[in-house]
Amino acid sequence: MSVTDTDGGGDVVAGACPPLWLGVDVGGTNIKWGLVDDGGRVLLRDHLPTYADQPPSLAIHRVVAAIDARLATRNWRRSDVQGIGLATPGTMDIPSGMILEPPNLPGWRHFPVRDALADASGLPVAFANDANAAAFGEHWAGSGGKLDSLLLLTLGTGVGGGVLVHGRTLDGTHSYGGECGHIIIDPDPNARMCGCGRTGHLEAYASATALVKRCEEALASGRSSSLGRTTLDPAGLSALAIGQAAAAGDGLARELVLDTALYLGIGLASLIHVLDPAIVLLGGAMDFGGESSPLGREFLEKIRREVGLRVFPDLAGKTTIRFASLGGDAGFIGAAGIARAASLGGSGLPHVRQG
Amino acid sequence: MSVTDTDGGGDVVAGACPPLWLGVDVGGTNIKWGLVDDGGRVLLRDHLPTYADQPPSLAIHRVVAAIDARLATRNWRRSDVQGIGLATPGTMDIPSGMILEPPNLPGWRHFPVRDALADASGLPVAFANDANAAAFGEHWAGSGGKLDSLLLLTLGTGVGGGVLVHGRTLDGTHSYGGECGHIIIDPDPNARMCGCGRTGHLEAYASATALVKRCEEALASGRSSSLGRTTLDPAGLSALAIGQAAAAGDGLARELVLDTALYLGIGLASLIHVLDPAIVLLGGAMDFGGESSPLGREFLEKIRREVGLRVFPDLAGKTTIRFASLGGDAGFIGAAGIARAASLGGSGLPHVRQG
Repeated sequence: MSVTDTDGGGDVVAGACPPLWLGVDVGGTNIKWGLVDDGGRVLLRDHLPTYADQPPSLAIHRVVAAIDARLATRNWRRSDVQGIGLATPGTMDIPSGMILEPPNLPGWRHFPVRDALADASGLPVAFANDANAAAFGEHWAGSGGKLDSLLLLTLGTGVGGGVLVHGRTLDGTHSYGGECGHIIIDPDPNARMCGCGRTGHLEAYASATALVKRCEEALASGRSSSLGRTTLDPAGLSALAIGQAAAAGDGLARELVLDTALYLGIGLASLIHVLDPAIVLLGGAMDFGGESSPLGREFLEKIRREVGLRVFPDLAGKTTIRFASLGGDAGFIGAAGIARAASLGGSGLPHVRQG
Repeated sequence: MSVTDTDGGGDVVAGACPPLWLGVDVGGTNIKWGLVDDGGRVLLRDHLPTYADQPPSLAIHRVVAAIDARLATRNWRRSDVQGIGLATPGTMDIPSGMILEPPNLPGWRHFPVRDALADASGLPVAFANDANAAAFGEHWAGSGGKLDSLLLLTLGTGVGGGVLVHGRTLDGTHSYGGECGHIIIDPDPNARMCGCGRTGHLEAYASATALVKRCEEALASGRSSSLGRTTLDPAGLSALAIGQAAAAGDGLARELVLDTALYLGIGLASLIHVLDPAIVLLGGAMDFGGESSPLGREFLEKIRREVGLRVFPDLAGKTTIRFASLGGDAGFIGAAGIARAASLGGSGLPHVRQG
């Protein structure tokens, strides 16, 4: 199911009746939120700045006010909404609804975010890790095709991991489940340093940050490339710029992009043997144009080939690997879907606070 | 809960009333089976040879006949048994109850083993992967302490992986879930060759087979060791012999054993980030004496230390790593437990064939 962008104002979408679900996806820069119908279609979407250094209670009240204001423009009220799904980055304690010590939300440490939103909104709130919520979103309304076992790697500043098993997010015992960016692809103690402070993790090789770093190193070592010019302007060297240079035929840029595919293939080999997911999705901005571009297809093909070299042949042949489809909406759509699943599951599903 | 060994003949165990469960664990050499009560206690256990080259239907009938004969000695009948759990090695198709192409059961290819046992016994049969069944056994009646998220690595000829998530075995989409012996710990294309034909897998470094191979290589390269003498007798060089030499203070043997812990630590770092299990258990014969021996404790301590170097500190600190407790009984106990869980779960749990 594709996302229906109805977010241009105007009348209520025909057929969009309750139950409706809200999804809220808190990031370090923006809070994205949206209203989703019972089939995962987006009826409204919006975002507001997080102001991550300010007290989170202010952000919660700004979100609720923004939701009320936008709902009103469509003649909806908060009481038309069945529940809210709230996704945040870790670290977190999902059962108790707490944000713990999130690196990107310095003002939000040890904050009972789920209950604060339930109190402010008067609605039941289900709480989830943002990367796992995005995986649930792709499962419910995106490339995941409702398959109940799914792995999503989101390539951006870091490598986010979202995992669905048995149709549920793999939250883990200590709310660290699905941290797939931190599997080890190089055991050498002198391997690349990850943002988390450990070495050899997938994220230290395959994130956009890592791609830029590998490019800087190659240029510093004297490799020639059209990208050499951008080093005069430090802001010019980005994963996007490297991807554009690769698409334009720059040899070094192509090599760096395809090395990223190699690293992802190594990591996916481990992940596929453990999880045996129905589908592996690659999300995030670093898709090199996606399926519609030759470089995007080459990137994906290289990942598949590397997986094929390292995984049981039967299993490799059966595992679909493709790009995700919901983009930056996956998190709030998935959060809304988790709220819906929690509601359908009744009291059996934990981590919901009634409003 | 420890296993109560009541398997010495004699009267019916006091308090052992139905519901009773049978577990059957098919291996390449032996078929182990046992009768288990509703709390996971073993009331009877036995084994018979598999004869893996012979038609599996003969083995199924031999198992049922052996079960009947042993039950009769305790004044039980098959009708006292609620159901059977059947565990086999892969490759398999769990939903359809098929064994596919198991390397260790050459005569059993493409055999509908679950339904054959249901037909022969007249009892409902639940089907599971043997390593995942062992994980369920440790969860139900062993070191797993009923925690609903557990990882079991079984160190033997290979490295078996069993995973419980959400209290259920991680069967995977194509019945390959939990193949943790095949995660990559060395990405070098010239890394060690795994039994599966791919390179760099954990099993190629940390299995008993790999330990012996690493020892042979060290001796061949001229390293001195008390083990050098055993190379005159090829049968003498075994994981057990290496462990005994290490316990006796042999330098090379100690190094090889602790290298095994290093490799396991690398692999576990990836697995813990993905699964965030409540507990990690190490099973199989290669426990170097277990918790009760200095070498076993040193082995475990080294694994914990290596995990601590590679995993988020908070997560590493929260994850328990210890030895499993059910030994070779884990598979049939877990299979029996899965049959029980399937029965309690009603028709919602798949993979059960009524007898």
